[in-house]
Amino acid sequence: MAGPPGLDEIRQAAERIRPYIHRTPVLTCMTIDKMLGGKIYFKCENFQKAGAFKFRGATNAVFSLSEKEASAGVGTHSSGNHAAALALAARTRGVKAYVVMPQNAPAVKRNAVAGYGAEITFCRPTLQAREEMLAKVVEQTGAATVHPYNDYRVIAGQATAALELIEDVSDLDIIMAPIGGGGLACGTALSARYLSPRTRVIAAEPMGADDAYRSFRLGELVPSENPKTIADGLLTSLGDKTFPIVTEYLDDIVTVSEEDIIEAMRCVWERMKIIVEPSAAVPLGALLRRRLDVSGKRVGIILSGGNVDLDKLPWLAGKSS
Amino acid sequence: MAGPPGLDEIRQAAERIRPYIHRTPVLTCMTIDKMLGGKIYFKCENFQKAGAFKFRGATNAVFSLSEKEASAGVGTHSSGNHAAALALAARTRGVKAYVVMPQNAPAVKRNAVAGYGAEITFCRPTLQAREEMLAKVVEQTGAATVHPYNDYRVIAGQATAALELIEDVSDLDIIMAPIGGGGLACGTALSARYLSPRTRVIAAEPMGADDAYRSFRLGELVPSENPKTIADGLLTSLGDKTFPIVTEYLDDIVTVSEEDIIEAMRCVWERMKIIVEPSAAVPLGALLRRRLDVSGKRVGIILSGGNVDLDKLPWLAGKSS
Repeated sequence: MAGPPGLDEIRQAAERIRPYIHRTPVLTCMTIDKMLGGKIYFKCENFQKAGAFKFRGATNAVFSLSEKEASAGVGTHSSGNHAAALALAARTRGVKAYVVMPQNAPAVKRNAVAGYGAEITFCRPTLQAREEMLAKVVEQTGAATVHPYNDYRVIAGQATAALELIEDVSDLDIIMAPIGGGGLACGTALSARYLSPRTRVIAAEPMGADDAYRSFRLGELVPSENPKTIADGLLTSLGDKTFPIVTEYLDDIVTVSEEDIIEAMRCVWERMKIIVEPSAAVPLGALLRRRLDVSGKRVGIILSGGNVDLDKLPWLAGKSS
Repeated sequence: MAGPPGLDEIRQAAERIRPYIHRTPVLTCMTIDKMLGGKIYFKCENFQKAGAFKFRGATNAVFSLSEKEASAGVGTHSSGNHAAALALAARTRGVKAYVVMPQNAPAVKRNAVAGYGAEITFCRPTLQAREEMLAKVVEQTGAATVHPYNDYRVIAGQATAALELIEDVSDLDIIMAPIGGGGLACGTALSARYLSPRTRVIAAEPMGADDAYRSFRLGELVPSENPKTIADGLLTSLGDKTFPIVTEYLDDIVTVSEEDIIEAMRCVWERMKIIVEPSAAVPLGALLRRRLDVSGKRVGIILSGGNVDLDKLPWLAGKSS
């Protein structure tokens, strides 16, 4: 793709990945509706394969490759959900995945990636070391690199979550998604613009990693520096492909405190009985704190993922010995 | 009802409660299927209103009352899911609920019951004190007592969970449910016998509270004495209405260790991204420990509830300070 995915490309992505992904359900919760005075529709990507929306973009990228390109495998550097998603997408196509991970990646994440059959190469935990090591791996193997978000094929794949949400729920006033590197937020904004143009798309970002918020306000790409947030899926900076889409297609970005993220996460666990990771709880955190008035409104929220270390729950932090 | 609910009575219960309950989804999990070699269908009563299947039986009982009976309210003694379910069912009908709870009931449970608008009376934490206090409350108020399980209206209500499961999933070889007082297990066995007679119904019980298992084997009602299990919904004894149904309609009861219950609970949280309480995990615990061979089989499991104190997770026990 030469530019941001058009509607045709998003529909093609949906067609391409349909046999491999889950069409995730949309859930509602009367208690949360009552708390907020609006009608909230939760698109449950925490139930997606590999536990997050990332599997959509990774699958679209892997299955977009020609036979020849795919035969050498795919590679990425990531310690999070994208690595697991790419590993599973590659295994689904029957090709190799090479994942560069920092030495200090938690065992639970290493195990997930290894469990999907990827070949892991460890490196020092700096962005430079990760990029250098991936370049080396790609040189040796000929693998096709799949970036976690700064890639139009990935953005088109992530856009299919909002596509399904809009198919399932009509007349949404607002759709919210968390924003980190911007893959999900851009895909969501594009699908909404094409299919439900009167719906406002608002991204939510942790205050401790508010580079997208500042970039959006300033009109230039501000990189993420020393981000600090429990929402570990949202630490990254926007890229040169996601930033222009964010600027043009997103209606707004709101920021959310750590306390509100944890409260929203616990609220979803307690009230909806489903498991979401901190990143997925950021949009609801904004609503609980009334950073957005949704009374009388119909609001879609993309619950981005559910990969949590069950030994380390944020509301128990400091309580474990 | 003069005897165990027939099919007509279960269908009437389904009709009666339909406007008030959630028709809960049936979920599957490829990873768990792969682990067990069978196809497992999880009926998600953890998503039921008030967080457990108990709302079905309580609603059927409350809405079975005449206007005159209902006008004086309903009463029960319970510190668990039944109390919350009855409180919500009463509020739904617009009548009062009187709940007798032991003084030492955890705050989280007191708050749930109070949150649904019930009037709580506290008493000493013995069965005798609870029964005496309830008798006193009933005498003062004229409230209709609704027993948590030893009541045919309640059993007919619980039977609607399996009714829906059988409507949604054909040709089940086995249906499993946890067993405590027997309300859910009896309802499940009755629905299966009427609607899918070749399906075997197998209840699962914690080893530390195996009175139903021993009653079933012995052919006489053995009361629960000093039960010890994390599955706090399964501490009670069978009653004179549930025991005969258990004997006649259940195909078998298997017992499960505490370790296996906790492993199964964590497995559901991690793999399915949904929250279930320990009692709900007992049937899967039996399967993970291969107490039942389900390879090549189609198995329904009723996930009975999802009410968990998120500050006290069993796999973190001993780790909190």
